[in-house]
Amino acid sequence: MRELKKSETLPKATAKRLPLYLRYLKMLDDSGIVRIKSKEFSEITQVPPATIRRDFSHLGELGRSGYGYDVPFLIEVFNSILNTREEKRIALVGYGNLGKALRHNNFRRNDNLNIVCVFDNDPELIGREIDGLTIYPIERFAEISKEMQVSVAISTVPSKYSQSAVDEIVKSEVTAILNFAPDRVIVPEHVNVQYIDLTTELQTLIYFDENYSTVFS
Amino acid sequence: MRELKKSETLPKATAKRLPLYLRYLKMLDDSGIVRIKSKEFSEITQVPPATIRRDFSHLGELGRSGYGYDVPFLIEVFNSILNTREEKRIALVGYGNLGKALRHNNFRRNDNLNIVCVFDNDPELIGREIDGLTIYPIERFAEISKEMQVSVAISTVPSKYSQSAVDEIVKSEVTAILNFAPDRVIVPEHVNVQYIDLTTELQTLIYFDENYSTVFS
Repeated sequence: MRELKKSETLPKATAKRLPLYLRYLKMLDDSGIVRIKSKEFSEITQVPPATIRRDFSHLGELGRSGYGYDVPFLIEVFNSILNTREEKRIALVGYGNLGKALRHNNFRRNDNLNIVCVFDNDPELIGREIDGLTIYPIERFAEISKEMQVSVAISTVPSKYSQSAVDEIVKSEVTAILNFAPDRVIVPEHVNVQYIDLTTELQTLIYFDENYSTVFS
Repeated sequence: MRELKKSETLPKATAKRLPLYLRYLKMLDDSGIVRIKSKEFSEITQVPPATIRRDFSHLGELGRSGYGYDVPFLIEVFNSILNTREEKRIALVGYGNLGKALRHNNFRRNDNLNIVCVFDNDPELIGREIDGLTIYPIERFAEISKEMQVSVAISTVPSKYSQSAVDEIVKSEVTAILNFAPDRVIVPEHVNVQYIDLTTELQTLIYFDENYSTVFS
C-alpha cells in the first residue's frame, strides 16, 4: 500500500474532508458495497464529484476511470492517514457532567486516545482521586501535562471561563485543544483549536428538517 | 445588522446551500481568515462564483466589489438565518452524564431550544422528577412527545442501544434526531439524523496539529 509521506502535505480543505469520507466509506463497507464511483459517493457525502476526485488524487492512485474506487482499500488508506498509531495522552479540563461523560466514554473507538489527567477549579474536586484519576487545579496544567506527557487537551469549561482555561493550557507544550465552548478563544498561532458547537449542530438539523426532504438535490 | 424577515423567503436552492456555506466559513474563521472573495470561496465550496454572489445578494449587502466578504460578518448573518425564531421543544433520550450535561447547558445561545422531557430505560430513574423534568420510559416516547409537542429528539444512548432507542423515536411524529452515537442507525426516509462523532473530531484535531500549520492553504 502506498504510504503518504509526512512531507507530502495535503491541502487543508482536503484533509478536513478525510474524516467525513472515512465515515461514509465505513457505512458503505458495512452494507457490503466494495466499489463506488465518485458520482455515487458525491450523492452520499454531498461533496461535489470533482472535489472528491481531486481530493482522492492527492492520495495517489486510488481509483480507475470508469471502474470507480475500491471501498475497503480507500478505508485502509484513509485510516492510515487519520488514525493515530501512537498513544495520545489527553488532559481533560473541566470535570462537570460533560467532563465525566467524556472520561467514561474515553473515545472507545480508538484505544490510543487516553485521558490521563483531569483539571478543574472546584476546591471540592481538587486533590481528589475520582474514577482512578487525580484532579488537579488548572494553574498546574503546564507542570502536570509535561510530567504526564500530554499532547492534547479537551476543555469542557463553560464559555464564560473558557478563555482563562485556554490561557493556562497554552502556557504548556500542548498545541491541540478540543473546545466544547463554541465561542472563539484567542490562542498563539502555533495552537490548534477545534470547536464542538452543539447549538449550531442542532440548529442545522432543525433547519434541514423543516426545509427539505431527505433527498439532497 | 440587517435582519432577514420571516416573510422574505429565500429561494429554496439558496437556503439549501446556507449550512454548507456556514460550515466552510467557520473553517476559514478557525484558520484566521477574515476576508474572502467569491472566487476563492467558490474554490473551497465548489459552488460557482456567480451562484455564491447571487445567493449572498439575497441576504443583503454582505460584500463590496473588489474587497470580498467579511468572514465573521457572514457567519453572524448566516447564523441568524439558521437560528430558529420559534420555540423548538426537545426530547432528551438517555440521562447519563452526557444527557445531564445537555440538560444543564440547554443550548444557551438560543432561548428557543428547550429540552421539555427526558427518557431513559433505567428503572432507578423512570418516574422520578429530576432537575424539574419527569423521566419517562423510552417505550412512552410517541405518547409523551405528542403531548409535549416535541419536534426534535436528542439521543445520548450508547451505540449498542442506539438503534433500539431510535426505533422508539421514529414511531412518533418527531422527524429530527441529533445522535451522539456515531454509528449509523436505520430510519425511515422522512427522518433526519445528525451525528456527533467526538472520536473523529478528536482524531481530526490531532491529525491537523501534527501535519499542518494554522494557515489555511
